[in-house]
Amino acid sequence: MLTLSSKDNINIKNTVKLLNNAKFRRKTGLFVAEGLRVCYDAFLSGADIDTVFATQGALDKHPEKIGELCEKSDRAFIVTNEIFSHISDTQTPQGVLCVIKTLDKVTEFDKIKNGGKFIALENIQDPNNLGTVLRTAEAFGVSAVVVTSDCCDIYNPKVVRGSMGAVFRLPFYTVSGIAQFLSENPDLTSYAAVVDKDAEPITNISFAKSSVAVIGNEGNGLTESAVNACNHKITIPMGGKAESLNASAAASIIIWEMVK
Amino acid sequence: MLTLSSKDNINIKNTVKLLNNAKFRRKTGLFVAEGLRVCYDAFLSGADIDTVFATQGALDKHPEKIGELCEKSDRAFIVTNEIFSHISDTQTPQGVLCVIKTLDKVTEFDKIKNGGKFIALENIQDPNNLGTVLRTAEAFGVSAVVVTSDCCDIYNPKVVRGSMGAVFRLPFYTVSGIAQFLSENPDLTSYAAVVDKDAEPITNISFAKSSVAVIGNEGNGLTESAVNACNHKITIPMGGKAESLNASAAASIIIWEMVK
Repeated sequence: MLTLSSKDNINIKNTVKLLNNAKFRRKTGLFVAEGLRVCYDAFLSGADIDTVFATQGALDKHPEKIGELCEKSDRAFIVTNEIFSHISDTQTPQGVLCVIKTLDKVTEFDKIKNGGKFIALENIQDPNNLGTVLRTAEAFGVSAVVVTSDCCDIYNPKVVRGSMGAVFRLPFYTVSGIAQFLSENPDLTSYAAVVDKDAEPITNISFAKSSVAVIGNEGNGLTESAVNACNHKITIPMGGKAESLNASAAASIIIWEMVK
Repeated sequence: MLTLSSKDNINIKNTVKLLNNAKFRRKTGLFVAEGLRVCYDAFLSGADIDTVFATQGALDKHPEKIGELCEKSDRAFIVTNEIFSHISDTQTPQGVLCVIKTLDKVTEFDKIKNGGKFIALENIQDPNNLGTVLRTAEAFGVSAVVVTSDCCDIYNPKVVRGSMGAVFRLPFYTVSGIAQFLSENPDLTSYAAVVDKDAEPITNISFAKSSVAVIGNEGNGLTESAVNACNHKITIPMGGKAESLNASAAASIIIWEMVK
C-alpha cells in the first residue's frame, strides 16, 4: 500500500473537504466514516467503500478487519500519524478512516405504503441530536426516518459517528418540508410533538399502524405549517421545572412510546 | 465599564483557562456560562456571579438584562468582538459570558432521606450526554443527580450549556463510586440499567418511592461492581437491530418511566 505523508496530496485534501463541507459531500456523493467500528459497520452493511486510510499502528493492531476494508475499497493508503490527525474529526484518533459512497435510499420509502412507524425531523441542527435519533430509531425498529432538507446533513461526520452505524442501515428520506411530505402520504396518521398543555398527552395515545411522529427544531420546535399539517398534536407531560426537553431526549421518549 | 482589548489581560487569560481546564475550575471554584439565556438563568437561580464579559453589540441589544447581571457581579468588562471570540466556546457567540462561582450542593443531598427519585451516573464522559441528562432530569422533577467523580466535569462549558440552566437549579452530588454511595444510602432501592435480556424489562418495574436508577459509561456500560451493588438489574427492551442506546437516550427513557 502506498504511504501518504503530505497534506497536499489530493486524496488527503479531498477527505478534509468531505469532513467539513456538506455541499462537497452532496456534489461528490461521498462522505467520511471514522473509527474501526463505524467503518466495519459500513462494510457489513454493504456500503460502497471508496478509500481506506489507516495508520501503520492501526494496521498492526487490526490486520484482518482493515484488510477486509481494503479489499472491498477502490483504493487504500497508509498514512503517517500526523496526516491521520489532519484528516481526523476526533480527539483520540484510532487510525482508521473510510471515504464511503452515499446511499440513495429514496426508493426504500415505498415501505410506507405497507404500514410502519416513522419519525420525521424538521430543521434539526445539532449533529449529535440527529445521530442519537437515528441510533434510537434503529434500536426500537422504527421503519424509516424522514428529514427535511434544512436539517443538519445526515453525512456530517458527527452524525455518522453518533448514529453508531444506523446511517448505513436505517432507511431515511429527505423531503423539502413536512406539509408537502404529509400531503403526499395521506395514509399516514401524523402526530406533531409540541410543548403545549392542551395537546394530547403522549401517555393517552395509541399510535396508528401507519404513523409518523414529527419533531421540530431544537430552539423553536415545529413550524406552524408543520403543526397544522399533522392530524394530532401530542405532548410529553413534564412534572418538573424546565420548560422543554432536548430534541433527542424528546425523540427518544416519543420513539419509545410509539414502538414499545 | 472598562473595555478589554488584549488577550494578555489576566481576566481574559483566566477565563480561557476556566473554559478548558477542569482542574483550574475546581481549584478556583469558578466556571464559565455563555449566552444571555444561560447567564440570566444563573442570575435568576441566585448564582454568585464573579465576572461579566459583554460586547458593545450585546449590551446595546439587551441593556436591561446585561445590566442586571453586571449589578449582581463582582466585576464587569466590555470586550471587543475579537476578544469575545477568544473566550467563547461557541461557533456563533452572542456576546455575553459570565464567570460564576461553583455551588456546593453536597448538603442538599439530605433530601434523600425524605424519599425521592434519583439518577446516578457512573463514568459518563460526553459533556453533551451529561448536559442532556441534567436537563431531562429537571424537566421530569427528578430530586437530584448523583455523578461519580470520574464523570465529565459538571462545570464543563458544554454541560452548562446543554443543561439549559439545570446545572444551576438541580441538586447534584459527586461520589467516589456507585457501590460506596449505595452502601451509605441503604434506604434507596437501586436499579442498574444494563443491556441484558435476562434483566427485568423496565416496562414491568414500579420504581420504589425512594429509588435510584444507575446508568453507566457510554462505551462500557456499568462496572460489575456497580451492577452488583444494585438491588435490581433493569433493561430497556428493544425490538430493532442496534445493540444499545446512546447513554442520554437510555437515561431519557428511564427517567420518563421512573417518574411518569
